Amino acid sequence: MGKPVLVGVDLGGTSFLTVVTNTKGKILSKKKCKTRVEEGAGIILERIADTVREAVSSADARLKNVRAMGIGVPGPLNPETGVLLHGPNLGPTWNNTPVAAYLSERLGCPVYLGNDVNVGAVGEQTLGAARGYKDVVTIFVGTGIGGGLILNGKLYRGTRYTAGEIGHTVLLADGPLCGCGRRGCAEALASRTAIEREIWAGIAAGRPSAIPAIMAEMGRQDMSSSVLAAALEQGDALTEEVMSKAQYYMGLLVASVVNLLDPEAVVLGGGLVERLGGDYVEPVREVAEQYYINQQERTKIHIVEAQLKDQAGALGAAIMARQSWERDHARKK
Amino acid sequence: MGKPVLVGVDLGGTSFLTVVTNTKGKILSKKKCKTRVEEGAGIILERIADTVREAVSSADARLKNVRAMGIGVPGPLNPETGVLLHGPNLGPTWNNTPVAAYLSERLGCPVYLGNDVNVGAVGEQTLGAARGYKDVVTIFVGTGIGGGLILNGKLYRGTRYTAGEIGHTVLLADGPLCGCGRRGCAEALASRTAIEREIWAGIAAGRPSAIPAIMAEMGRQDMSSSVLAAALEQGDALTEEVMSKAQYYMGLLVASVVNLLDPEAVVLGGGLVERLGGDYVEPVREVAEQYYINQQERTKIHIVEAQLKDQAGALGAAIMARQSWERDHARKK
Repeated sequence: MGKPVLVGVDLGGTSFLTVVTNTKGKILSKKKCKTRVEEGAGIILERIADTVREAVSSADARLKNVRAMGIGVPGPLNPETGVLLHGPNLGPTWNNTPVAAYLSERLGCPVYLGNDVNVGAVGEQTLGAARGYKDVVTIFVGTGIGGGLILNGKLYRGTRYTAGEIGHTVLLADGPLCGCGRRGCAEALASRTAIEREIWAGIAAGRPSAIPAIMAEMGRQDMSSSVLAAALEQGDALTEEVMSKAQYYMGLLVASVVNLLDPEAVVLGGGLVERLGGDYVEPVREVAEQYYINQQERTKIHIVEAQLKDQAGALGAAIMARQSWERDHARKK
Repeated sequence: MGKPVLVGVDLGGTSFLTVVTNTKGKILSKKKCKTRVEEGAGIILERIADTVREAVSSADARLKNVRAMGIGVPGPLNPETGVLLHGPNLGPTWNNTPVAAYLSERLGCPVYLGNDVNVGAVGEQTLGAARGYKDVVTIFVGTGIGGGLILNGKLYRGTRYTAGEIGHTVLLADGPLCGCGRRGCAEALASRTAIEREIWAGIAAGRPSAIPAIMAEMGRQDMSSSVLAAALEQGDALTEEVMSKAQYYMGLLVASVVNLLDPEAVVLGGGLVERLGGDYVEPVREVAEQYYINQQERTKIHIVEAQLKDQAGALGAAIMARQSWERDHARKK
């Protein structure tokens, strides 16, 4: 009889990360694998099950010691049934897949399903930048902008389990076209995709920029966070200007959500924030604090940088699994 | 020994409404009095206490039957201590007033303090338009725009008890100046004040409008909801255009908050909504539904008109008092 362990998996379109932790979330083993979406849901789920077995073994544990497993998935889902409804980055073979039931049967432990951004928020609130805070808004900035809400210490999922779509807060009515097909959403103004669009527009309008040379040097087809960081380090004026505007919009988004939810902390994460750190967070905080309606206590809101990096999702999935297991266990009593 | 009753008071800058209800919120008696802010906090609190005594008596009850009293106040407060921090519409004599302790001592019953908009949300969720819904966003449109959040069936107050400031969600970055001193807030785009500003701007620019004649006829100095309703009834083109734009912005606000919180219901209330009813709500719903990120289940979100009119605050205060009393009572057990 070994000690109980938790398993957390963060499933992405490119790779998935598996961690095995003790019941407090301390990592005992981890394993990163390619997802290879072209192989389809069935084969990928088998690979996830195999990887969990290996990771548990690497942690000197056995499957029967796994108290609960959590898996964060990129798409809308039903946490009650453990079914992924669809996953835009995973492909159509995942539509209406009973992910939790499938893995639970294969591995013989309870499996809980969560949205990848939501479990990331759980990770940061329990083990990362927002430890000890009860009401937390987490905003992840990447090609899109996603969010997770921890309210009264618990993940808030909403009626249709789709709460946290903070990237689709309208900040500039009738503004630039968003990936969602509407206009002026935060995602269309402050995501890496929006920054990329504005820099290309500047270059097309004849503005000088070091970006194309940096991309060529790094062998990149896209404007990754590293490309943007390199341009900023070189003092590229166009990049500075576009980034500054994106941070301004992010500040307005943070202020709007603080005015609405009055949280203790706002965690900013995702590739761009990880790469730029305080240089990203500081200007966002400055704008946000100007827009708080409650000015007297503006320093009471902690705007902080995410700490768990690419482990937030897997760790959060493990903790979410523990919380869900405890809730189910309390119900049965 | 009579049956237990609840008391609810909604304190405004012009008048305050007192209700006595049974424990389910059924009104047994009510009384509306002028506030007369110029008299200051001390005298007004005495008048509130006197009015409560009268209203309890009118309900064929006695003060010792009052299980709990709630009072909704227009300003930031601390619900734990029952202190009103300040009340912009009440004047400086109310700064840091221990409203709950004062009334509790005078009346001999537990008194709980809530924000007026928040208790209005409690009223609509327990007895009004959002009965039976667990996650509810309430938006009151008047000279400003205020909101209240009921999440997981309970009033969500936030870290500094200022949650619900939905009027200060930025919808049009760098847009029109808001009363809060910033730009582009929902309140600067969709409140009655914003509508008034835009109509005067249209008139100043030479647009024809029936508004000045209607105001003169009604003997009004300001563009009240009734003035606006009359202009719309006459088919005044400028008013229609400005109102339609305000509804568009309100639709964007509703969609943004639905995308973030995924509630079961959004309740729209306040003078303008009461006066215009479905003519106000329908266009707002149309815009909002277009902007939901979760399109598959868009009809699952109920956008409804508030039902309790000017009684929402007092009724909500009574119910909040019962809920707070039950919570305190459960704690003591």
